[in-house]
Amino acid sequence: MKILLKIRFVGTNYAGYQVQNNAPTVQGELCRAAEQLFGGRCDVTGCSRTDSGVHANMFCAAVTNHGSNILETTVPTEKIPRAMNAFLPPDIAVISASEVEDGFHPRYDVKSKEYVYLIQNGGERDPFMADRCLFYPRSLDTDKMNEAAKKFVGEHDFAAYMAAGSKVESTVRTIYRASVTRDGGMIRFSVRGNGFLYNMVRIMTGTLIAVGGGRISPDQIPSITQSLDRKRAGSTAPACGLYLNDVEY
Amino acid sequence: MKILLKIRFVGTNYAGYQVQNNAPTVQGELCRAAEQLFGGRCDVTGCSRTDSGVHANMFCAAVTNHGSNILETTVPTEKIPRAMNAFLPPDIAVISASEVEDGFHPRYDVKSKEYVYLIQNGGERDPFMADRCLFYPRSLDTDKMNEAAKKFVGEHDFAAYMAAGSKVESTVRTIYRASVTRDGGMIRFSVRGNGFLYNMVRIMTGTLIAVGGGRISPDQIPSITQSLDRKRAGSTAPACGLYLNDVEY
Repeated sequence: MKILLKIRFVGTNYAGYQVQNNAPTVQGELCRAAEQLFGGRCDVTGCSRTDSGVHANMFCAAVTNHGSNILETTVPTEKIPRAMNAFLPPDIAVISASEVEDGFHPRYDVKSKEYVYLIQNGGERDPFMADRCLFYPRSLDTDKMNEAAKKFVGEHDFAAYMAAGSKVESTVRTIYRASVTRDGGMIRFSVRGNGFLYNMVRIMTGTLIAVGGGRISPDQIPSITQSLDRKRAGSTAPACGLYLNDVEY
Repeated sequence: MKILLKIRFVGTNYAGYQVQNNAPTVQGELCRAAEQLFGGRCDVTGCSRTDSGVHANMFCAAVTNHGSNILETTVPTEKIPRAMNAFLPPDIAVISASEVEDGFHPRYDVKSKEYVYLIQNGGERDPFMADRCLFYPRSLDTDKMNEAAKKFVGEHDFAAYMAAGSKVESTVRTIYRASVTRDGGMIRFSVRGNGFLYNMVRIMTGTLIAVGGGRISPDQIPSITQSLDRKRAGSTAPACGLYLNDVEY
């Protein structure tokens, strides 16, 4: 068998998910904790690469013995979260663990993912949300932002919302749901799709901020998308407001 | 005139509110920001001393010119929060500023203060709440905790809930309201009183945890209080779960 972990982490102190030399990463911490708990070398495979400073309310990763497709352990599956958490730093936690088939792949088998982007808009910046949202003091029209977000829904070529210079076979993705809501001073952009290009949610967010501020109208979104031109979309919103919120298999 | 600031801060990175040599403090940061904004030396007087690691959803502090009872400035009062925030670190923010009389004292004029203590009870530890609550995995009975909290209400000698070795003229305080509520896995102890002894809320919290775990019954609270004996009360809960939540003048 193989073990699939559901994880939450605060991304602030990490150079993203994926292991790098000379920088702390979430994968590196998970791997270290798994090796302390299970003994021997382990591989940890995540559901996605996340950038430096991006957070996860729910991230999925599989643990196996190094170079193997399975995990051999006597630790009961339901005890794994608490046991792993004893070896993990305070800003990463395993929420649950489940057994999956040997052939299961945490990235290739994803059906959809949901991202959330938080923008504090109104009032003074909240110190409890520092590095956990974008503080944007100028007034934003969330009705217009929501109207614009709906135009992302469907199967489209999202090249206009991909970081310049990224390489990928196809820039076509399907967005199933997208919405912008406001709760007091906090604006929440939620978007679910079958996959996302590099920086796609952050560029969508920058575009929605331009809509909320009146510089782009919601009706312009389809033509921006169709242009496939990165320069027509908004700027890339900072990583600190972005959360991987759900992963569906 | 004198300026009263309402402040929020995450206490994790500070050795408490009050200025100390060789340690970052909230007062030190406020003073430095005030001097950058208003020019010249400033005094900042807080509503309370808070311990290292304690947070504030609302803290009040007055700013004056050094050695004076007033603040001379051309900065319009309503512009002060945004302007101060530009000089403050991300984990401290001024929420609002108002003009108060020259004779106003932010500590002596307090009518009541409310503290909140957060306990995560159930599930795995939440990385987004690391250093912002106590993670207590064993099951706690919040009905019993609430019943016990109600016994704190009234004018009592709270010596049993004061850190051993503290010196104070009187250990009599009045608690106006106290309650324990649960929202999912998060337990919230709220207590409002006319004043609090050193570590009083944290010792009350430790006592309520003993009640929630069945080691002390709610009916024993009055006799623990009457004993004036610190050893009869529960242990001191860690600072990280404590928030100054409101200050009333």
